[in-house]
Amino acid sequence: MSRWEPNARGRLEQAALELYTERGYEQTTVAEIAKRAGLTERTFFRHFADKREVLFAGAASLEELLVATVAELPESASPIDAVTAALEAAAAAFGERRAHARKRQTVITANAVLKERELIKLASLSAALADTLRGRGVGEPAASLAAEVGVAVFKVAFERWIEETNQRDFSHLIRESLAELKAVTAGT
Amino acid sequence: MSRWEPNARGRLEQAALELYTERGYEQTTVAEIAKRAGLTERTFFRHFADKREVLFAGAASLEELLVATVAELPESASPIDAVTAALEAAAAAFGERRAHARKRQTVITANAVLKERELIKLASLSAALADTLRGRGVGEPAASLAAEVGVAVFKVAFERWIEETNQRDFSHLIRESLAELKAVTAGT
Repeated sequence: MSRWEPNARGRLEQAALELYTERGYEQTTVAEIAKRAGLTERTFFRHFADKREVLFAGAASLEELLVATVAELPESASPIDAVTAALEAAAAAFGERRAHARKRQTVITANAVLKERELIKLASLSAALADTLRGRGVGEPAASLAAEVGVAVFKVAFERWIEETNQRDFSHLIRESLAELKAVTAGT
Repeated sequence: MSRWEPNARGRLEQAALELYTERGYEQTTVAEIAKRAGLTERTFFRHFADKREVLFAGAASLEELLVATVAELPESASPIDAVTAALEAAAAAFGERRAHARKRQTVITANAVLKERELIKLASLSAALADTLRGRGVGEPAASLAAEVGVAVFKVAFERWIEETNQRDFSHLIRESLAELKAVTAGT
């Protein structure tokens, strides 16, 4: 029964974000998302478990990217170097998607259930990073702390990146937040 | 109608934790918690919104404690000094409650809904700390980063504290995690 639908996944994500922005998340149904994308509900459910997961479709690939980046570094890289490399890879991957990221964050911030799901995503990112660092022989608590710090820098830089007045790119803000973090923990 | 029940709140918390440990969180009802505590369901609902919130009854006072500790520090305290003072106050408040903390964490770890609620608690702690730091004139992103780092240290030290084999006290582990954090961010 399944037909090949060119970029069905991307079209459904785009349609969902448009409808959540126009009508609100709660008020939007899967049927409406599928219709807007010119696809069927069946196709929607081949790609996503429910209307919430459309907004978190990128979480698994972000996690894979961070883990792969850290896993490929030379053994000599320190935990903070590893986390820095992971964040730079993330910034490069987000690249020009700022308008999309802003819209998505606006939808998430307006809904308690989505905010919870976002927290779970970040906790999962942190756990995956810590796990990868331990796999490289980093001990505890260093591995968990480096991972938590990485996610904190990501979160803070991301929030600044999507601010309406911001002109700087994501990787610049990542580097700036990392430098600030070093200054803060050094007590200066 | 309301009678004074000596330490009703504490008795309900204790009864709930016992039942969640014995039977599982899902399998326990508010009626059973009230009965175990020798109180009525009405009394339960005067103190807690539902059976989930019994486990998070301490979150508001923990947040108040951290915020009050930071707010009372001399102006000269740096953000990391402020966060350190807040964590030491938290460690002192947990004090001898390790057995309770371990049992509670075991219940939470076993249940996805409770894990989400715990993430919300920690995010709320971080937001309150950042807010207090901004109130003291700390700029962004320093305030958010210091707060995130504080919560990360708290989380990591807490997990080590409740480990079965751990013999060290919470404040020792907080100081150790803070020192490790400084080493990690300095790249050593």
